[in-house]
Amino acid sequence: MSKPNVALIGMGLIGSSLGHALKKNDLASHISGYARSAQTREAAMDIGFVDSVHDTPEAACIDADVVFFNTPLSAVKALAEQIIPGLKDNAILTDVGSVKAGVLKDISPLLDKRVHFVPGHPIAGTEESGPTAGFAELFEGRWCILTPDDKTSLIAVEQVSKLWQGMGSEVTFMDAAHHDLVLAITSHLPHLIAFNIVGTAAQLENDTRSEVIKYSASGFRDFTRIAASDPIMWRDIFIENKDAVLEVLGRFSEDLTALQRAIRHSDADYLEEVFTRTRGIRQSVVEAGQDTDAANFGRDE
Amino acid sequence: MSKPNVALIGMGLIGSSLGHALKKNDLASHISGYARSAQTREAAMDIGFVDSVHDTPEAACIDADVVFFNTPLSAVKALAEQIIPGLKDNAILTDVGSVKAGVLKDISPLLDKRVHFVPGHPIAGTEESGPTAGFAELFEGRWCILTPDDKTSLIAVEQVSKLWQGMGSEVTFMDAAHHDLVLAITSHLPHLIAFNIVGTAAQLENDTRSEVIKYSASGFRDFTRIAASDPIMWRDIFIENKDAVLEVLGRFSEDLTALQRAIRHSDADYLEEVFTRTRGIRQSVVEAGQDTDAANFGRDE
Repeated sequence: MSKPNVALIGMGLIGSSLGHALKKNDLASHISGYARSAQTREAAMDIGFVDSVHDTPEAACIDADVVFFNTPLSAVKALAEQIIPGLKDNAILTDVGSVKAGVLKDISPLLDKRVHFVPGHPIAGTEESGPTAGFAELFEGRWCILTPDDKTSLIAVEQVSKLWQGMGSEVTFMDAAHHDLVLAITSHLPHLIAFNIVGTAAQLENDTRSEVIKYSASGFRDFTRIAASDPIMWRDIFIENKDAVLEVLGRFSEDLTALQRAIRHSDADYLEEVFTRTRGIRQSVVEAGQDTDAANFGRDE
Repeated sequence: MSKPNVALIGMGLIGSSLGHALKKNDLASHISGYARSAQTREAAMDIGFVDSVHDTPEAACIDADVVFFNTPLSAVKALAEQIIPGLKDNAILTDVGSVKAGVLKDISPLLDKRVHFVPGHPIAGTEESGPTAGFAELFEGRWCILTPDDKTSLIAVEQVSKLWQGMGSEVTFMDAAHHDLVLAITSHLPHLIAFNIVGTAAQLENDTRSEVIKYSASGFRDFTRIAASDPIMWRDIFIENKDAVLEVLGRFSEDLTALQRAIRHSDADYLEEVFTRTRGIRQSVVEAGQDTDAANFGRDE
């Protein structure tokens, strides 16, 4: 396939960044866009990260070779049902959602032999949202994890891989369920904890709350940044990845209870042992190149 | 008092930064230093953030007008007992510990009329430790909270305030117990959570753990940074601030259980409501100037 026609379904942070990145790297013949809100469609044309916008998802996809779903997870299935009948032969659907097993299960039965689905997840993002938040470099130097199953067309996988590589990402492959477990601990649980601790602070008595904000120190300040992420996107992630999130949350709570007990009984040795062990993990993350300036350029989800 | 002789008891990140900042701003006549390890004392002289080093805390303090305790909390009481008898008249003791009620209770009975104690806490730090980690700008633009009680000499408070202001800090005052509650939520609980989540990851099966490190995303990556902080310092903080930490941890756990239940029952409305509320707190933190580039220059504890 030469340069494909690409359709962007959803033009928030990720969708708009895809448009910018596809244009910057000259990867698409034509980029069409759909968003539910007319305001977002207008903004997309004004900013210029798409070549055309459309009032319906079907219209945006009619000439598309590759369709990216960049919506909250809960919207993907209904959108796929809407557009699949009108797609060209050999069109490829792909997505950018943070949970993969569910979308694979939802979309697979909708496919006919003419249309392929390649589930994807770029480990990239910021706490900003909306069509004005995107930028072409968001995916550069970041992982994009694809989670095809054994029925997925290898040609389609290759086509999607090339687009991500063209935008500067390193592509890797993982089983969908395993992806969801790994992301539950690296991303979903930390976000849940950040939402929770900031929520706890929000419920403090007025005087104390204003002092918490005034003297907001690290880590609370870091947690407020994480907890400013898109509420709808995260609501969907926790519901879609319920099993893995509840599994790691169970482990987390057991461990926290052990720390709580050690604090109550002034068990200095236990605390020191746990805190010393965690330093080693930090060293591994730095060695894996996941906390360099480049890795921080786009803060990831 | 003209430029005081300052003694630094403990020369890790904070002690060495004090030396650099006092020198840069020309605030001390002489800076003497004590550290338990001969290596640290040698490093301090080599780097040059002190004018002299001494084998015992008593020797370092013999001519001091102001003594800064920059050690883990658990070491302060015994050090104070050692040095107070040999101090000059009107010498001032102060500290930089992250918990204030305990040190005030420990030191007050040791004071005679000749010697003053002004508890202090600069809201500044990084995850680095040791005498090579310090730099002169660590305290610039950051809060320093002093927690004197009604018996503390106002002249001593003013003297300590002037030193912090001279190093670029904004000085504020708080009741010691209230300080400990505010810091429990802004700093101690977030650190405990970060230590815990990284500890939970450390106990995953080998394969999954290496993928967690490889695809380490925000927030996990941010959490590993926080969880790389000094284990001894944090062990002491949790034990010293046990009551406030257990209080906020109780609230945190109740709120987390409610979120867990909402995830289990796919209660989308509840999740969206909580995640939307936390965005507002983020806005307040940004408006309070606590997440500007300047505020991030020194990551704070």
